[in-house]
Amino acid sequence: ALALASTALADDMEDYRAMFEPLPFLPPIPAGNSMTQKKIDLGAMLFFEPRISASGVISCATCHNPALGWSDRIGRAIGHAGQVGVRNTPTVLNSGFLTSQFWDGREPDLEGQALGPIQADVEMNMTLDQAIARINELTVYRTHFDAAFPGEEDPINAQNVALAIATFERTLNTPNSPFDRFLRGDDQAISDEAKEGMKLFADNGCVACHSGPVMSDGMFHRFEVPGSTDEGRFVVTADEADKFTFRTPTLRNVAVTYPYFNNGSVNDLRDAVNLMGEQMLGHEFSEPELDNLVAFLHTLTGEMPVVAVPALP
Amino acid sequence: ALALASTALADDMEDYRAMFEPLPFLPPIPAGNSMTQKKIDLGAMLFFEPRISASGVISCATCHNPALGWSDRIGRAIGHAGQVGVRNTPTVLNSGFLTSQFWDGREPDLEGQALGPIQADVEMNMTLDQAIARINELTVYRTHFDAAFPGEEDPINAQNVALAIATFERTLNTPNSPFDRFLRGDDQAISDEAKEGMKLFADNGCVACHSGPVMSDGMFHRFEVPGSTDEGRFVVTADEADKFTFRTPTLRNVAVTYPYFNNGSVNDLRDAVNLMGEQMLGHEFSEPELDNLVAFLHTLTGEMPVVAVPALP
Ligand code: HEC
Ligand code: HEC
Ligand code: HEC
Ligand code: HEC
Ligand SMILES: [Ca+2]
Ligand SMILES: [Ca+2]
Repeated sequence: ALALASTALADDMEDYRAMFEPLPFLPPIPAGNSMTQKKIDLGAMLFFEPRISASGVISCATCHNPALGWSDRIGRAIGHAGQVGVRNTPTVLNSGFLTSQFWDGREPDLEGQALGPIQADVEMNMTLDQAIARINELTVYRTHFDAAFPGEEDPINAQNVALAIATFERTLNTPNSPFDRFLRGDDQAISDEAKEGMKLFADNGCVACHSGPVMSDGMFHRFEVPGSTDEGRFVVTADEADKFTFRTPTLRNVAVTYPYFNNGSVNDLRDAVNLMGEQMLGHEFSEPELDNLVAFLHTLTGEMPVVAVPALP
Repeated sequence: ALALASTALADDMEDYRAMFEPLPFLPPIPAGNSMTQKKIDLGAMLFFEPRISASGVISCATCHNPALGWSDRIGRAIGHAGQVGVRNTPTVLNSGFLTSQFWDGREPDLEGQALGPIQADVEMNMTLDQAIARINELTVYRTHFDAAFPGEEDPINAQNVALAIATFERTLNTPNSPFDRFLRGDDQAISDEAKEGMKLFADNGCVACHSGPVMSDGMFHRFEVPGSTDEGRFVVTADEADKFTFRTPTLRNVAVTYPYFNNGSVNDLRDAVNLMGEQMLGHEFSEPELDNLVAFLHTLTGEMPVVAVPALP
């Protein structure tokens, strides 16, 4: 009987496995931005480079802090001169898999995204010309831009900054989470509780929006985040139908990217799941169900990229 | 003749070598704070921990940034809410070798130093009680404090925070600089220009104050830094004789810890050397002499510690 039950469980599991995708080691690489080691190295330097901010102390890594799941673990981002922004900092982990960038999807890809924060006055507060001038002052950068963009006459420019940062970000992936190992066939990689959570996640329709390798459909959905007046996607499209809609975030590493939602107003993963159930599914989960869903979400934490902080010029 | 000249040079070199000390791999470890791997690991976490600041975004590593020679490369430190402090951030590299801490030497050792910045209102702006409460909230820390301070009933306390951070800092050393290799017998480790610089450094008396393994005598000397009204050591002792005196800083890695002096007012190493000559020695160096001195100071850049940014709870 025991053998039979476990076979039944196994068949069952195959059906569920088919509803998910393991995280590949690399996201798609765009034709216009080949991934080379030199470009990755330059991108890492620029990602950790505070001199491209007005104060000289804020880099991408300030808010997307490698110590904190490549995010900041505060509600809303704090940028130039201590100003508090309006949105929660998403992790850059696995961001290369997203089909649009930012909570409101206003940029299509990482190349488009990278120059935004340098110029945002609540973030790094620089003009691109100023940023490029600073990079030029640090003369050692010339060698690194030459190596990353061979044959270009004037490689230190804003476009190449974006290409290099985006290339570096595409290396920040977290494969081999317990759930990935489970999906690839290791039945023991996740607990029974987590397996129950996975079933609840699938059966209740969470997977409709949190689908694909990073568990985001890349679409925009209306959600009333506690305390938020952010109009979300509407700010980009001015289409009434987009009011208060936000791009589904990745659930990869969600256990380490608290606090949650577009304004970071919810600290606890269990509360976040509960709110999703109520608002997105009109469903009230029981306490044991919440336990199981949270156990499942914990299995989505993968291997963190090992990045040595580069020594800057 | 050539052979003779080079022997003469070699003898000469031995005399100079005797005036310097290579950097040991580790600074003295105090009897009351044994160096264990668990304590180092905990100290690294706390060093990168922004949640012990009022804003939640400033850690020791914000100002002592591993990407920037474990300093910040700006004139005066920027801390809580974008406030600009009055002094330049010294590197923490090799700080375990210093016989007193801070520009004014107000703390005797790293243990005494560590709790200062957490509480300084222009730095991290926390009370120690608040900082300890935050650490307690991040429950995973308990395991790390237990491991670092085995057998203690209540290991999460301010004293242990200081002990752990100080232990981590004692691992941040930069041995094997070209000059160290030269001192240990490798004649080719530094250029002829740098050798001339070393001689100038010794013959003109720089070595009187910049002596010992980190090239600091640990003493206080009067220096009129351009633009500074800082009273230096006087603030600590209220002794008129200490007015405007500052502890001799280390010259280890000085090429990567610009800008220079207690208020960071001098960007260029050559200008810093020139000012030292004028004020400390009443001596005007020629242009070639300045070249050689700067070449020598560049040989003091050692191997940077490889520190993986810890994943925090
Ligand atoms: C002051 C804090 C701060 C700084 C500095 C900062 N970011 Fe961000 N980042 C944020 C916030 C907040 C968002 C979300 C903004 C929004 O959705 O409108 C974001 C969004 C992103 C995203 C989109 C991720 C997603 O899930 O949609 C990427 C990628 C990113 N940042 C990379 C970078 C890079 C590269 C830099 C440096 C050039 C940088 N960030 C600098 C706070 C910051
Ligand atoms: C209709 C689409 C949709 C469904 C169904 C859905 N989600 Fe979401 N989910 C979203 C969107 C959109 C957000 C971002 C909301 C915001 O912050 O504005 C989100 C956010 C989250 C977050 C917070 C992520 C973060 O990093 O801030 C968690 C956790 C989450 N969802 C889990 C679930 C679970 C569990 C279910 C099923 C019970 C579920 N979601 C169902 C679209 C959906
Ligand atoms: C806001 C910037 C800032 C932060 C945050 C900061 N420091 Fe510093 N640090 C400084 C400045 C500025 C000085 C010099 C102050 C003085 O001499 O009065 C200094 C001095 C030091 C020194 C003495 C070095 C020497 O040569 O005398 C050490 C060691 C040190 N800091 C370690 C730390 C540790 C450990 C932390 C975190 C607990 C920390 N710092 C947080 C800016 C900062
Ligand atoms: C009488 C003692 C004394 C002598 C002699 C001396 N120095 Fe200094 N040096 C100091 C002190 C003290 C400071 C810190 C001054 C300040 O910033 O307030 C300093 C700072 C420096 C700095 C800047 C370090 C930094 O990180 O900010 C350099 C470079 C330097 N000295 C090189 C030299 C050279 C080269 C000579 C010889 C030409 C020399 N010094 C002679 C005591 C001395
Ligand atoms: Ca978050
Ligand atoms: Ca300095």
